[in-house]
Amino acid sequence: MPLSEYTIDPDLDLVLEREVAVPKEKVWEAWTTPEILMQWFCPLPWKTVECEIDLKPGGLFRTVMESPEGQRMDAGNGCYLEVINNEKLVWTSAMEADYRPAPASEDNPTGFFTAIIMLESTDTGTRYSVISRHSSAAHAEAHQQMGFEGGWGTALEQMVSLIKTGSIT
Amino acid sequence: MPLSEYTIDPDLDLVLEREVAVPKEKVWEAWTTPEILMQWFCPLPWKTVECEIDLKPGGLFRTVMESPEGQRMDAGNGCYLEVINNEKLVWTSAMEADYRPAPASEDNPTGFFTAIIMLESTDTGTRYSVISRHSSAAHAEAHQQMGFEGGWGTALEQMVSLIKTGSIT
Repeated sequence: MPLSEYTIDPDLDLVLEREVAVPKEKVWEAWTTPEILMQWFCPLPWKTVECEIDLKPGGLFRTVMESPEGQRMDAGNGCYLEVINNEKLVWTSAMEADYRPAPASEDNPTGFFTAIIMLESTDTGTRYSVISRHSSAAHAEAHQQMGFEGGWGTALEQMVSLIKTGSIT
Repeated sequence: MPLSEYTIDPDLDLVLEREVAVPKEKVWEAWTTPEILMQWFCPLPWKTVECEIDLKPGGLFRTVMESPEGQRMDAGNGCYLEVINNEKLVWTSAMEADYRPAPASEDNPTGFFTAIIMLESTDTGTRYSVISRHSSAAHAEAHQQMGFEGGWGTALEQMVSLIKTGSIT
């Protein structure tokens, strides 16, 4: 599904677009299978130590990350919104499972966001597009400062390496 | 679709369940057609003066109400989450169109909520079930105090009258 399907607001949305040399079915599998996702989802040296996926609109998407020193970062209980096999995955931190609005979190500078992940086959692999939607320019800016593009880009490189070689390094 | 499809949290969810003597296709039409919705959606003497419906997951659901004195109440830009014709309609105030998280509104005592509306045919008409999901017990309590059951119940009675007689009174 192409990025052009959506209108981008440059003040509120962050976009990542990459070409990767692996088939989109493998990218989809990496995003939707907990045992695989846990291997690539978090840029090293942090690790994803917990992952729950209930792959349906309204289903839970939950991850917990951990630093080498054992610091845990609970990414919260997100909710899947759209699940179109091998094409599009949409989930949000603004809601928990079964579409319950998430409690406001004052100490989270990036606020809630919705991630729209789109996959398209190309001659050599997959065009991988992500839109991260925010409610305010301040939240989008904070997410960018925290390293949205670097973080998601590094995670994607780890995923591609995992698919190609069975290892993320 | 039956209410039993969902788990209810009595601290966080409000539920309305009614039997009405009109076919579920007519209830669905009343919920999804702006010109019809505007006639019944708001308990008299308030009126719904604006309504936009983009009936798809990620589509906009927007209403504006007005008192007899001309006081306007913008119910905000909500987002449809699930649209199953004549069976189930899910929308939330926690997100705007295209799944953008809604800006936090400190002065709204009920917070964000998600409405799950389910319709089932019965021998004499339709079983009409609504779940209103909140992020906290305080928000659910505030929504109940504001008259969730009375408000949604009165609106439903207006809808049924409209379907049966062409008028809401």
